[in-house]
Amino acid sequence: MAKDNDPRLLRGAAVRQRILDEAAQYIASQSSIGKLVSISIGEVAEVAVYVRNQARVAHQLKLPFDQEFWGSDVTQEECKARLQEMNDDPSILGVILQRPVPDHINLRSLQSAIHPLKDVEGMNPASIGNIIYNDVALAPCTAAAAVELIRETGLNMEGLEVVMVGHSEIVGKPVAMMLMAEGATVTVCHHMTRSVAMHSRRADVVVVAVGKAHLLGPDMIKPGAVVIDIGINQTPDGILGDVDTEAVKEVAGWITPVPGGVGPVTVAILMRNATIAHQRQIASGWLT
Amino acid sequence: MAKDNDPRLLRGAAVRQRILDEAAQYIASQSSIGKLVSISIGEVAEVAVYVRNQARVAHQLKLPFDQEFWGSDVTQEECKARLQEMNDDPSILGVILQRPVPDHINLRSLQSAIHPLKDVEGMNPASIGNIIYNDVALAPCTAAAAVELIRETGLNMEGLEVVMVGHSEIVGKPVAMMLMAEGATVTVCHHMTRSVAMHSRRADVVVVAVGKAHLLGPDMIKPGAVVIDIGINQTPDGILGDVDTEAVKEVAGWITPVPGGVGPVTVAILMRNATIAHQRQIASGWLT
Repeated sequence: MAKDNDPRLLRGAAVRQRILDEAAQYIASQSSIGKLVSISIGEVAEVAVYVRNQARVAHQLKLPFDQEFWGSDVTQEECKARLQEMNDDPSILGVILQRPVPDHINLRSLQSAIHPLKDVEGMNPASIGNIIYNDVALAPCTAAAAVELIRETGLNMEGLEVVMVGHSEIVGKPVAMMLMAEGATVTVCHHMTRSVAMHSRRADVVVVAVGKAHLLGPDMIKPGAVVIDIGINQTPDGILGDVDTEAVKEVAGWITPVPGGVGPVTVAILMRNATIAHQRQIASGWLT
Repeated sequence: MAKDNDPRLLRGAAVRQRILDEAAQYIASQSSIGKLVSISIGEVAEVAVYVRNQARVAHQLKLPFDQEFWGSDVTQEECKARLQEMNDDPSILGVILQRPVPDHINLRSLQSAIHPLKDVEGMNPASIGNIIYNDVALAPCTAAAAVELIRETGLNMEGLEVVMVGHSEIVGKPVAMMLMAEGATVTVCHHMTRSVAMHSRRADVVVVAVGKAHLLGPDMIKPGAVVIDIGINQTPDGILGDVDTEAVKEVAGWITPVPGGVGPVTVAILMRNATIAHQRQIASGWLT
């Protein structure tokens, strides 16, 4: 295992704490603040872990947090109707729709039903479209966490050569758009890319989110590069990232560990999104 | 000038005609179809040319086309209210908001006010967000025209190395997203990119939309590559593209001329978007 004090390890803990401190300060400065509502549809064990974690962090920030559990027999129309009520309810600050959802539920349609001003996860296509317009107010949390960790290196984003490996809607593409907005030159690689190594070898920053344990080895990284590992892979050897951390650490200038890198920052971004949603709701006249 | 029969020239005329024929066929098959409404705010000479062109093409397709001219003293709120009326008016198939608009008008806010189902220009952030989700139903017209011309080469998009030069919201970023959706590996370069040539030299396809006459010369193109030129630059030497067409033609495998390349396809895409909007409005129960 990497030593705790290895300066090449780009840990999430300090970044997380800084973002949470800012959020706590904002929340403490408000006379009142609405609640976050987490919605789980059906029963999924791994979701429960996420929700408990979010609830605990919200509690630390004195941000009200409600957990709703909807039965797996709920219909799409019922879900939509309930979300629309939540959009209209001024006591609700933001809505978190936990994933996965049962097969008969159209996830994206529900995400679109959450009003962009209450979309603290940044999952509504309108929220994601706003990223293209360089308006990254409510960005998808994991993507924003990755960007935050790159920023933590102190490197100037302008002109930085970034290679994003993975082109998912909720991580790869938003990361690419957000980094372009900061002035980086971004290449997005994916399973159809002829040679990922050709791209990753020339990159100042490599961000990986594909869900394949140890996909990236040291031969694929330029010496001194920043490596941001978003992968979380359950394996017989424990939780592994998409990067062979121990080996790549000998080449990279900075590398995020898994666990302990991007993950801890993600929930902090969710809370920051909640404070931004509050400000936007005030600015839009929804709250007084 | 390039000879008319040069096989390397990727002309827009045939692609345009094919798309328009399909649209005309669709429109003829409908018992009735709503109208497109073009809105020009204030007086801008170049806008008038665009609108006349759109009106003429719509007329050929037997698609009703109304031109509205709003005074330059119209307020943002008045504009929004009028657009909302249009959203609710079943006789209106789609709305085209001509650009530029006067300085006191917030263009993006108005674009957001056009319902995504009537957004035939594909300019609403929600429409653009849907591109990230690989739903390219109503794509920005110029971006979709560029993609259509790449498709015309017959090259397999999967694994194709594409370099997009220019990262505007309405062209560069949507082109990048649309090509990713087709399986291409895309790099987006812009004014902060350290070396555009380093990227463009290795690309199978180069798409340029920066608005600088003859920015790309033959030393920046890989032999045999596809070059899609979206630039339209008024110069003392006439209208020039962002590519030095005559010189690059000696290197490229395919190259779009300016004028006569992407431009003619763009208005055809607008008409195709109108037919798609019609189908979507029916599917959503807006029309019967």
